[in-house]
Amino acid sequence: MMIRDTTPAAGNSIYDRDLDKSPANFTQMSPLTFLERAAAVYPARTAVVYGTVRRNWMQTYDRVRKLAGGLAAHGIGKGDTVAVIAANIPEMFECHFGVPMIGAVLNAINTRLDAETIAFILEHGEARMVIVDPEFSDLAARAIAMTGLTIEVIDIIDRQIEGSGRIGGITYDELLGEGSYNFRWSPPDNEWNAISLNYTSGTTGDPKGVVYHHRGAYMNAIGNMLTWGMGDHPVYLWTLPMFHCNGWCFPWTIAAAAGTNICMRAIRVETVYDLIGREKVSHFCAAPVVLNLLAHAPDALKAGLDHPVKVMTAGAAPPAAVIEAMEAIGFAITHTYGLTETYGPAVVCAWHEEWDALPIEERARLKARQGVRYTVLDGLMVADSETLEPVPADGETMGEIFFRGNNVMRGYLKNPSSTEKAFAGGWFHSGDLAVLHADGYIEIKDRSKDVIISGGENISSIEVEGVLYRHPAVMEAAVVARPDDKWGETPCAFVGVKEGSAVTGQELIDFCRANMAHYKAPKTIVFGALPKTSTGKVQKFMLRERARAL
Amino acid sequence: MMIRDTTPAAGNSIYDRDLDKSPANFTQMSPLTFLERAAAVYPARTAVVYGTVRRNWMQTYDRVRKLAGGLAAHGIGKGDTVAVIAANIPEMFECHFGVPMIGAVLNAINTRLDAETIAFILEHGEARMVIVDPEFSDLAARAIAMTGLTIEVIDIIDRQIEGSGRIGGITYDELLGEGSYNFRWSPPDNEWNAISLNYTSGTTGDPKGVVYHHRGAYMNAIGNMLTWGMGDHPVYLWTLPMFHCNGWCFPWTIAAAAGTNICMRAIRVETVYDLIGREKVSHFCAAPVVLNLLAHAPDALKAGLDHPVKVMTAGAAPPAAVIEAMEAIGFAITHTYGLTETYGPAVVCAWHEEWDALPIEERARLKARQGVRYTVLDGLMVADSETLEPVPADGETMGEIFFRGNNVMRGYLKNPSSTEKAFAGGWFHSGDLAVLHADGYIEIKDRSKDVIISGGENISSIEVEGVLYRHPAVMEAAVVARPDDKWGETPCAFVGVKEGSAVTGQELIDFCRANMAHYKAPKTIVFGALPKTSTGKVQKFMLRERARAL
Repeated sequence: MMIRDTTPAAGNSIYDRDLDKSPANFTQMSPLTFLERAAAVYPARTAVVYGTVRRNWMQTYDRVRKLAGGLAAHGIGKGDTVAVIAANIPEMFECHFGVPMIGAVLNAINTRLDAETIAFILEHGEARMVIVDPEFSDLAARAIAMTGLTIEVIDIIDRQIEGSGRIGGITYDELLGEGSYNFRWSPPDNEWNAISLNYTSGTTGDPKGVVYHHRGAYMNAIGNMLTWGMGDHPVYLWTLPMFHCNGWCFPWTIAAAAGTNICMRAIRVETVYDLIGREKVSHFCAAPVVLNLLAHAPDALKAGLDHPVKVMTAGAAPPAAVIEAMEAIGFAITHTYGLTETYGPAVVCAWHEEWDALPIEERARLKARQGVRYTVLDGLMVADSETLEPVPADGETMGEIFFRGNNVMRGYLKNPSSTEKAFAGGWFHSGDLAVLHADGYIEIKDRSKDVIISGGENISSIEVEGVLYRHPAVMEAAVVARPDDKWGETPCAFVGVKEGSAVTGQELIDFCRANMAHYKAPKTIVFGALPKTSTGKVQKFMLRERARAL
Repeated sequence: MMIRDTTPAAGNSIYDRDLDKSPANFTQMSPLTFLERAAAVYPARTAVVYGTVRRNWMQTYDRVRKLAGGLAAHGIGKGDTVAVIAANIPEMFECHFGVPMIGAVLNAINTRLDAETIAFILEHGEARMVIVDPEFSDLAARAIAMTGLTIEVIDIIDRQIEGSGRIGGITYDELLGEGSYNFRWSPPDNEWNAISLNYTSGTTGDPKGVVYHHRGAYMNAIGNMLTWGMGDHPVYLWTLPMFHCNGWCFPWTIAAAAGTNICMRAIRVETVYDLIGREKVSHFCAAPVVLNLLAHAPDALKAGLDHPVKVMTAGAAPPAAVIEAMEAIGFAITHTYGLTETYGPAVVCAWHEEWDALPIEERARLKARQGVRYTVLDGLMVADSETLEPVPADGETMGEIFFRGNNVMRGYLKNPSSTEKAFAGGWFHSGDLAVLHADGYIEIKDRSKDVIISGGENISSIEVEGVLYRHPAVMEAAVVARPDDKWGETPCAFVGVKEGSAVTGQELIDFCRANMAHYKAPKTIVFGALPKTSTGKVQKFMLRERARAL
């Protein structure tokens, strides 16, 4: 029996007749199929490692089906939001499959947020259930209490967290006990269905709920594999939080590649190096700030790296000094770029072999560029924010970065005006400002709000930071605008100094003036550690406040 | 402005509201985007090598856009069929992009067919234009004359083919001259649109026209990359004809990977080894019969292989002896399986590292199995042909292989009854008979029509062939049924003997009886070269006729 496609034939050629969709030749794309395949083909391969826990793909698939069955037994179904507040632990990985398996939507919440923001997210996302890691049970309890809603709470039990109070009715394993590994699930009835909900950590206003769908998650999971030329069985270290853009879609990528997830509750340099060596980690993702930590680890740790490790970084352009230091240790850095709205990375600084011969400084300069579209991203341009007229490829003219493709979000949940604005003109407006180089590579110069306008001239804070990072005493640096009566704004630099190093503010200003246009050099230098989000992004809004208060 | 999705909302959850498709977040999948990206990101990298011709990706993209413009200038448009009769030359590669770029459908015709069959294909596919390689101009002229249709003919000019008569109005390069590298093209307005038409080389009845679409071609092109863990820039040798399932989708794969196409007019062992060495070929595809040729090449040629080469084989299970010989030379064999109806390979014998430690005979036995679904194929099963009830995973019970997924054809052109039959029950019926092993791997035992029924017992011709291939004197072997008054049928083996070897029929029969159930051993042995199709498949229907006439 054929199921006839009900859409009208688009034309009258011979190809428009009797060649309809059927269950045999048209299936809904979903990354859930990757898990089923990994369990079928490599049942005994290690899927998840966490402390003393080691589970293979069949055990993981069994647990995921039990989770789906347990959720269904608790009345969770299609279009329901299930929130998770958890570190990078096996349960978090399982939720990326078990929740959407029954058509529900996974809302992984940033564990570094305050209770008030989490309460807002739970209310706005209309979470029907929250699955809570014991490390965050107090936080979760406070947040849930603030909502005034009745939300079912499931407690994860974790031997690594002692003495934590239970705040829910049943445990995660009890929930699994209500399901069965025989639970029969179906792929979504439409690949456009929501798979997850990720709130952006906006610095102003309420966070926005970015909705991903099965098609996009499938595409970007595969896009990651293509970008890295990833073969089967990567050993992937979970340095990047899974609550951040669903770990850039890597839970689905690692299932597609039948790899091994090396879970980790928190980033400690010793733990990272230890796991890399012990588990033979082949790949991990991290923000440049984490790379910086790894680059400045004690030499004994760094010397232990005895096999090649591929590292994907995004979230900020990696400073040349960081790239150089990481490559000297033996890490191969791939620089990618994206936003929550693009399923994480959707742009890559695709490497050219002929660049290998260049001096390290030149290589780092090339690698710090954001680059070109992922194979699975259809459109990327730098254009005027209003007219959408592309900028010339001159490496000079600034414009906004626009995305178009299947790995662009469905939109912002319950926020049609923001969605409409974000997609105005048929392109996603990133808010990031960049230039287009002659070779077609884009390079971010700033977020609109991070541009410093001094004496009528635009100054890219990123450019100033790049120069500061080259100074041997600088561990980290962030530059923001400081209000100025004469110039309107002037660049104000916040600088963390390397242990054992010393430098004065004037020395840094001189260094900047020697390495860039004088007007771009910071007028003010403030020393101290930088405030950061949980994903390692410097919280520039806090620095802006400090600069205003100086 | 948002484009509202006109399909009715599927539910009433918060995710069903205001999260519609827009040009920003929904694009039609098409492998044509791979070419655009390769040209944008790696314009100067070598895309195509053929004799003294070397073109980079930008030059290739320019030529493809000129081709699309030229086709449009000749009135070719959406849903029109453009046939190509050509060897694996650059023009053939270009047609895989230039023809669908304007919505037309590429019909690459098997060059080994007789004029009558080609005439049938041109008529049935309603070709509006034929692009002809000079090597096949006589054949094409005869075929076109038989149709009685007015079909525009374009002559490819090739310095490697001397003195060939021109049969068309203009040359391929003149056609390109009517287009421009500025030709503006759009991806298809629907990823379900036809991209190509491939006629199956049916052994009985008229060939059937298998229709591929953009979505499926995109998926399987990427499926090839995932199967091989293919990174950027493979150097791909065109041993497999592009007219065969569009070269298993590899024209699109190589564009996605920004690799290099090493073109080759005909398979000669010396040429293959020469190009592998000279161009540093990293990958190629070939039927087992070609591998057999390479395995039996002079030692001097084989000794020249100085870098790893990955080989994908399909079309028949590679005999253990062939796998062993190829691996001894240094080729890494991946065994895949598929049909014209599944865009070429859609199943792979995914390897397990622990198998590396097994003796070669055991490894070869495992590798000769067809295996498991491609990552991009959603469903694969062995089941009863009528009831679609899956067989037990016992390695014994025979059933038919069924496929389901986006890399299953749209259907057979102008043949709704065959399409309906092929998709009965919502699965594609392959016609191949297999068992399912306990580890979930399928293994083909025979095509339905290749089973030999002797004294009421089913005999798998493939099993008998596998034993014959193990005999040191056997170069190639094919077994078919020979009518027999007493037994109904008996196995009849056609055998090619290795140069310098000698063996008698009785010796081979004794060898078979020593290595398998006696009733399965051939009763008749016929020595001589085997008749083959252009893609290296043994033409068993001819052998069956010979066996009947004995």
